[in-house]
Amino acid sequence: MGDKDALGVRDSNRPAPAIASGVSRGTLMRELKLSSAFTLMESGPVVLVTTRDGQKNNIMTISWTMVMDFTPVFAITTGAWNHSFAALRKQKDCVIAIPTIDMLDKVVGIGTCSGIDTDKFGKFKLTPLQGKFVNSPLIKECLANIECKVIDIVKKHNIVVLEGVAACINTARKERRTVHAVGDGTFIVDGRKVDRKKMMASKLPYGV
Amino acid sequence: MGDKDALGVRDSNRPAPAIASGVSRGTLMRELKLSSAFTLMESGPVVLVTTRDGQKNNIMTISWTMVMDFTPVFAITTGAWNHSFAALRKQKDCVIAIPTIDMLDKVVGIGTCSGIDTDKFGKFKLTPLQGKFVNSPLIKECLANIECKVIDIVKKHNIVVLEGVAACINTARKERRTVHAVGDGTFIVDGRKVDRKKMMASKLPYGV
Repeated sequence: MGDKDALGVRDSNRPAPAIASGVSRGTLMRELKLSSAFTLMESGPVVLVTTRDGQKNNIMTISWTMVMDFTPVFAITTGAWNHSFAALRKQKDCVIAIPTIDMLDKVVGIGTCSGIDTDKFGKFKLTPLQGKFVNSPLIKECLANIECKVIDIVKKHNIVVLEGVAACINTARKERRTVHAVGDGTFIVDGRKVDRKKMMASKLPYGV
Repeated sequence: MGDKDALGVRDSNRPAPAIASGVSRGTLMRELKLSSAFTLMESGPVVLVTTRDGQKNNIMTISWTMVMDFTPVFAITTGAWNHSFAALRKQKDCVIAIPTIDMLDKVVGIGTCSGIDTDKFGKFKLTPLQGKFVNSPLIKECLANIECKVIDIVKKHNIVVLEGVAACINTARKERRTVHAVGDGTFIVDGRKVDRKKMMASKLPYGV
């Protein structure tokens, strides 16, 4: 946090970030304006949520997510049954990383083992990148990453409310189709895109 | 509520339900076990949410939804800016209806006008059907319908928590591809389905 400037150049007088890889985000990901970040989530793709507890990175696979505002604010449903929950509660940040269809086996693999006994970045050959505003790592291999602060936890319903504070996208990536979990062990891949911008003009937020 | 038995046969001694159409649900929709109902929502499709306030049916288009449990429990984000919110708060039930790609223009149309001055069932030529446990109407033309009770409203975050109490699916329907809103006026149609049931066996809830 705060050890790189906006261009991703590290101040050599400050200590290196406590992250497994020092790869600069700036060379791989293009900044995405925050007012568009919700469009990465609105279609309901399976996402990877990273956390960092002390020196240890973790990842969980989540499809129980919801956009709550254009600002952007998101909800995820999780609880003590997920190893990542303790880190979310303690560190109060995470990264929502958006994987694509070519990463499906990693996504399922991450969702079927636990951070208790597994270094998921190592096991699934994923590269953690330093974020701008959060300690949780971005995932280099994903299409996009949204740095989030935990702004509330609704204990009664196991809802964690997140506010996106930075977002970036890998514009060089060829495969951009995300995946949607059905919940029965099958997944739906993004198909064709249909445009209704004209019909929806009155309802679209400014700047999207 | 309670004016039809489990087979959709109306007791002639009771008054007709206060609903625009008396079409029986049983002839069109196959009962879906509640333990599978979350699979209609988990992939994040755009849905239609119906409400009934007094004698007036309404529909809203929603993509801010989240599965919260297999039971099934769902969250939707909505508030006073939606005309349906008053009915949700007062009547404490709704129906989540799942439209498909052939219904996209109706879905967008419903999302860009208001129940304040529009009879949406009439305007979009949709047929309300009587549910089993709720006063809000099912939508005959949709692929599936989930009858829901409002079990909580988290005011701070405009989250309405719903519990599904019955679900049904139109098995005769040819078009089954749902649609996912991106949020910028474009929509993604369901593409191919990928099976990872074997890999996920340890994580799938019983009976799905």
